[in-house]
Amino acid sequence: MGEADYIVKGFRASAVAAGIKKDKGLDLALILSDNSATVAGAFTTNTVKAAPVLLSSERVTKGRARAILCNSGNANACTGERGIRDARSTGNFVADQVGIASEEVLLASTGVIGQPLDTGIIKTAVPGLVQGLSPEGIPLAARAIMTTDSFPKISVFEGSAGDKPYRILGIAKGAGMIMPNMATMLAFILSDIKIEAGFLQQALLSSIETSFNRISVDGDMSTNDTVLVMANGQAGNMSISDFEHAEFEKGLHSVMDELARMIVRDGEGATKVVDIVVRGAATPGDALRAARIVANSSLVKTAFYGCDPNWGRIMAALGRAGIGMKEELVDILVDDVLIVERGLGKGVEAEKKAASRMKQDKFTVTIELGQGGFKERITTCDLTHDYITINADYRS
Amino acid sequence: MGEADYIVKGFRASAVAAGIKKDKGLDLALILSDNSATVAGAFTTNTVKAAPVLLSSERVTKGRARAILCNSGNANACTGERGIRDARSTGNFVADQVGIASEEVLLASTGVIGQPLDTGIIKTAVPGLVQGLSPEGIPLAARAIMTTDSFPKISVFEGSAGDKPYRILGIAKGAGMIMPNMATMLAFILSDIKIEAGFLQQALLSSIETSFNRISVDGDMSTNDTVLVMANGQAGNMSISDFEHAEFEKGLHSVMDELARMIVRDGEGATKVVDIVVRGAATPGDALRAARIVANSSLVKTAFYGCDPNWGRIMAALGRAGIGMKEELVDILVDDVLIVERGLGKGVEAEKKAASRMKQDKFTVTIELGQGGFKERITTCDLTHDYITINADYRS
Repeated sequence: MGEADYIVKGFRASAVAAGIKKDKGLDLALILSDNSATVAGAFTTNTVKAAPVLLSSERVTKGRARAILCNSGNANACTGERGIRDARSTGNFVADQVGIASEEVLLASTGVIGQPLDTGIIKTAVPGLVQGLSPEGIPLAARAIMTTDSFPKISVFEGSAGDKPYRILGIAKGAGMIMPNMATMLAFILSDIKIEAGFLQQALLSSIETSFNRISVDGDMSTNDTVLVMANGQAGNMSISDFEHAEFEKGLHSVMDELARMIVRDGEGATKVVDIVVRGAATPGDALRAARIVANSSLVKTAFYGCDPNWGRIMAALGRAGIGMKEELVDILVDDVLIVERGLGKGVEAEKKAASRMKQDKFTVTIELGQGGFKERITTCDLTHDYITINADYRS
Repeated sequence: MGEADYIVKGFRASAVAAGIKKDKGLDLALILSDNSATVAGAFTTNTVKAAPVLLSSERVTKGRARAILCNSGNANACTGERGIRDARSTGNFVADQVGIASEEVLLASTGVIGQPLDTGIIKTAVPGLVQGLSPEGIPLAARAIMTTDSFPKISVFEGSAGDKPYRILGIAKGAGMIMPNMATMLAFILSDIKIEAGFLQQALLSSIETSFNRISVDGDMSTNDTVLVMANGQAGNMSISDFEHAEFEKGLHSVMDELARMIVRDGEGATKVVDIVVRGAATPGDALRAARIVANSSLVKTAFYGCDPNWGRIMAALGRAGIGMKEELVDILVDDVLIVERGLGKGVEAEKKAASRMKQDKFTVTIELGQGGFKERITTCDLTHDYITINADYRS
């Protein structure tokens, strides 16, 4: 896609290197809607919440906002009262410079936990940041929110409502600490559709459940997870039919799902994206629990890395999931290759075939429990040497 | 300790290389009591149970046994009806050769899951195994049960009952897949004390709870976990006083705790043993959950490897434990170094000091929640490059 495809009517963005990151990379991004936009948000369920999460989750309840200010390099988490004051100040710098109300600025941070934010360098950077705002600035903002990510993540959907075309564009950062309940994960989604805040919030929550909440990188969950959606109505649609509502929801989900998969693909050190599909579970909870426990098993994930169809590790993981299962009813497939039938291995030839499927950068492990009719999917990645290298050394 | 210290009256052991392991190492061990011994056992809680686990858990209910036959290299798990038949046959080879009842032979296996056991090579090996039985054979048996372990694990306790000295000697294998509920972990504990089976079973279960169930290597749990205790009464004590019962329990716990710590120290790729101590929890469950979630966090464990006092990761882990906590009440120490006080970092100097403590091969992380009076401990290790190497490649 070209630059022109990353434009959403009435939104401008920019990014600068303020000096928060030690490597002097881009670390401060601003997204501004020309008019007051409908907004919805979802945030980490971690008990320990970063200061910007506390502020933004309060501000989105108003249903309207103008701007998102996001810094990378410092999470502003575990920073106490000072953290809240600092987050508020950085929002005020933007509000003052742009000429909007403080409450219209949403905040997000990602990076090291427990270090006070240097608001001075952010204050110094904000005028340049505002001056740099441009409709073409979104890809730059996508770069500026990265931490250990190796590529920026952007996804676009195009639809129409009341004969007016509209766009949904999302940017995200992920990498480490991604787990079922969307961890150190930021996503900002912009649309020019005109839509009601209550509907937007509901569409966001249902889409999260089957996108960001269905991925796993390392089983950890961060203090800073934030997903924000802004819709500014500049597409000019006067109303939305039920059909169009459904289409918008589908579009929002497709953007979030694509971003979620990009996050897994870019999981710290990951070389493969693996869909763990559990079928035939007795309950929806069993299906999800089984998929999660397999997707989070360090032994299973290292076997993926080694292209080893080590189904014994999958069976052992299922066995500790606390679900309804009978070993002798379980089938396991790698893509189309059946490696376990009714609890027993299909032998060396099948495993060789499966191993060759596992050499791809993307494959599916399907587990048939034979207990009932429920199905779930979790998308995960392999556990590699680079994960250790990145995380043993992240702060130095 | 010398060889003589690894003798328990009335027990003989031996080991051979039967050819189950590809590397031709020792892979078959036999322990025999000269007389019928009191026995107790504890087994994996994984729903998927290996054939020898199914057989042995049934046999220990009789409270008496003579022998333990253990092979390494093949777990005989996920092998269906054939697995059960195979396990039973291998026990019969021993029973026939020694001249005891089949039900007096307990079985244990560890190794690759899902491959049928080659009973032929075991049959061929059993006569030599029985012939090699010797009071000095226990250390050899400790070697033969190893898989990815890098050293054999033996622990001894000496006590006295009714003026008669007795011994408790334990051997264990561990390495990968160790997690809160004692995974791919085998431990065989031998004593010459005369003790009642019901008491032995109860002492075993209470000791497990605070030893093998308080360690974590990689959060996985195996299909084959087995802990067996045999007491043959050859110490000659006629009775045991309450005080002596308590001493025996303490001794059993000290043997199991030492073995458990050896297992963590020898965790796949581990370079450090770390005690995670949680104090001041509102409930015992909160204390344990908090300690476990920190001990199992890949991000925390990689930070241990990097000697990085990255307390933000600890806070983030606590925040997703679903426990009663307030960020602003949490203190965190590395050994004696306070790095977080009331939720806030103590700064660069404290972290430098903590980092130097983390360079040791053993240290303690203490987390004070400030919520109540409950305390728990989980012993864990770091997550390293070697863990990935070992596990990406285990079957090849």
